[in-house]
Amino acid sequence: MALIVQKYGGTSVGDAERIKRVAERIVAAVRAGDQVCVVVSAMGHSTDELVSLAAQVSEEPNPRELDMLLTSGERISMALLSMVISDLGYEAISLTGSQAGIVTDTTHGKARILEVKGDRVRQALAANKIAIVAGFQGVSTAYDVTTLGRGGSDTTAVALAAALGADRCEIYTDVDGVYTADPRIVPSARKLHAVSYEEMLEMAASGAGVLMLRSVEYARNHGVVLHVRSSFGYEDGTWIKEEDERMERAIISGVAHDISEAKVVIQNVPDTPGIAARVFRPLADEGFNIDMIVQNVSAEGRTDISFTMPTDDLRRAKPVLDEIAASVGAEGVARDPDIAKISLVGAGMKTHPGVAADMFDALSDAGINIEIISTSSIRVSCVIRAFEVERAVKAIHDRFKLTEESIIREQHPATATGQLRAINARET
Amino acid sequence: MALIVQKYGGTSVGDAERIKRVAERIVAAVRAGDQVCVVVSAMGHSTDELVSLAAQVSEEPNPRELDMLLTSGERISMALLSMVISDLGYEAISLTGSQAGIVTDTTHGKARILEVKGDRVRQALAANKIAIVAGFQGVSTAYDVTTLGRGGSDTTAVALAAALGADRCEIYTDVDGVYTADPRIVPSARKLHAVSYEEMLEMAASGAGVLMLRSVEYARNHGVVLHVRSSFGYEDGTWIKEEDERMERAIISGVAHDISEAKVVIQNVPDTPGIAARVFRPLADEGFNIDMIVQNVSAEGRTDISFTMPTDDLRRAKPVLDEIAASVGAEGVARDPDIAKISLVGAGMKTHPGVAADMFDALSDAGINIEIISTSSIRVSCVIRAFEVERAVKAIHDRFKLTEESIIREQHPATATGQLRAINARET
Repeated sequence: MALIVQKYGGTSVGDAERIKRVAERIVAAVRAGDQVCVVVSAMGHSTDELVSLAAQVSEEPNPRELDMLLTSGERISMALLSMVISDLGYEAISLTGSQAGIVTDTTHGKARILEVKGDRVRQALAANKIAIVAGFQGVSTAYDVTTLGRGGSDTTAVALAAALGADRCEIYTDVDGVYTADPRIVPSARKLHAVSYEEMLEMAASGAGVLMLRSVEYARNHGVVLHVRSSFGYEDGTWIKEEDERMERAIISGVAHDISEAKVVIQNVPDTPGIAARVFRPLADEGFNIDMIVQNVSAEGRTDISFTMPTDDLRRAKPVLDEIAASVGAEGVARDPDIAKISLVGAGMKTHPGVAADMFDALSDAGINIEIISTSSIRVSCVIRAFEVERAVKAIHDRFKLTEESIIREQHPATATGQLRAINARET
Repeated sequence: MALIVQKYGGTSVGDAERIKRVAERIVAAVRAGDQVCVVVSAMGHSTDELVSLAAQVSEEPNPRELDMLLTSGERISMALLSMVISDLGYEAISLTGSQAGIVTDTTHGKARILEVKGDRVRQALAANKIAIVAGFQGVSTAYDVTTLGRGGSDTTAVALAAALGADRCEIYTDVDGVYTADPRIVPSARKLHAVSYEEMLEMAASGAGVLMLRSVEYARNHGVVLHVRSSFGYEDGTWIKEEDERMERAIISGVAHDISEAKVVIQNVPDTPGIAARVFRPLADEGFNIDMIVQNVSAEGRTDISFTMPTDDLRRAKPVLDEIAASVGAEGVARDPDIAKISLVGAGMKTHPGVAADMFDALSDAGINIEIISTSSIRVSCVIRAFEVERAVKAIHDRFKLTEESIIREQHPATATGQLRAINARET
């Protein structure tokens, strides 16, 4: 008997029919002898609808009250799912984030989980009930309702799996796994059987939408085995777990892209010691996520400092950026939302130094200009013009022959698990 | 400085614009120096929409889960209201039934309030915040979310007013008070300035929809002064409070009608001692509300037992009624939903025995047949055919000249408060 946490996203519970199908899937797992704890998102686009309801009454809704509002979404989906399971003859009990003991800090809108008590979940499972827990929400140390931000339901699922010591955490979504590239751009992109936490982290950070960064981090930190799969079929999806022997053999996992970021340039800054700290400390203090920082070589004692940040944050960041520019004596601030970030990820990259050069070549051959480069030990990312992103993804996917399972086998001994090699994602 | 509990019904917070108007009304009270605790219903018909969502997935939804589902409604309205008040520059905090400490029994769907802790409400008020509490919902002694049934938000408001020792409880609705008859049937019906708890109780039990029975009972038991008024205007509505000298002078308060009940006849029952108990005990055990019980004079040792009950309960009651009929040796059970109950209510009736006869006369003159009669010390009710109900209401309202404020003054010394005399209600 395994203990499984199953997480169903909004599309999977988008209407009454889909909720019924999900209920049958859950019951099938129980019938097969497993203990099941379910984490569920709000139905379809209902969270977006609640957000626009808030926008109708307030330009900048009070964060505590926005959380109170948004958490009604999962309440609806989990109660409906629980009813259907009851009707199928199995005992189910829905639990809010608060009832499940998902304790968070007090940062409304993107609270962090501090502790998962899970007492009522354990009680339910011990009584042979199916526990249906609201994703995305918790209760703060000040006893207020909080939400975990984008992808929060995945985080709830992973955190519960860790707290319960679950055998695995199944993330059900509307795609059937992680691909070597976005299949909408590269129709020949290949579904991966397994990837390591590290690779998935880099992919998530690079724009692969299947899983959010935080949930993968949480899974890695607590050793939770993830299985991303479709709620509309029964075939295996993609496993995400500790890197193992087989994965070591992969050089390139896949290509990810991200058009949600903007480039910001603090122009013509006096190049004095400590300048970077004076630029980035105020941004960090305000909670902005900054990526891909590049400082140009200094010319005549002055330099440009470039970085990327979410386009959605640009408006809120404007006063902060202007103040920074003034305080460091910069000439001005340029904001450019029309960029894309394209990333190549692969655990094998560590020992194959030619990968970055091959990627730059591929872009160059396609006539695509690179504006910023940043790398990690298993990732190379380039900022390019947004309108060129599809061409760039295809060019790189082709260059590294990611469609073929055999590419690495040409360089390494063939194995039965040779397919564990590429990674990417569609948005959910 | 007064402490006021204000309750806003679903129509009052039906859309963004109305929520904004309600927020301004609340803020106006605070600006005038009052402390305000607000109780709010779900927006417009959203509770009905949630019920039909449940109906899409389940024929008979699990009661615990249905409560979990329905309680999302007030969450939405109270969060939105709170946001708007924040934007107006006043601190507001929304609280769920659970957060406000509305502790109930475990009867899902129509839980009874056992205790109102109200700690967080008191804290909020003490910190000069406006507390916005979800109506209709509580948390059970088993820590599950419960709902209080129809009119539950009124009960929440009254219970909070009692627990907080509020100076008054204002019930804002889409009508501007309690009338001598339903103004849709009798356009000349008169709005009342004040009625006693007892009269309001009889009216509520007789189908007057402005306030539910339970909330009036609660108000009477705890001495909470109620003020029913429109959320769309600022004029006084109807006060409901302890009967006083002035009220004693009223004979007739108003005419109420109710088409939500059905007549049930247990036919040709052997008339033996204890028969009534054997009929009604099983119905009571199953929680059915039975009204207007009549046992015919026995003929040849057999009799008919008639009563009324909510038409909505007929389907669920069928097996119970069939079993009762079989067990007491009845010939059968007749169910008739096409009836109406029409009631005349007035505190002065106690000392004016002619009232019932006048009512029967009025119905007789209108050619309307009476099927069942039941009376209390301040009420006379008749069951008639449903299609005759409007004619009956008009006939009785006319006969007792309820449109005129002067009717009682002709028989009693005129007073400045002579208008405190009639009572009825539109449905909300």
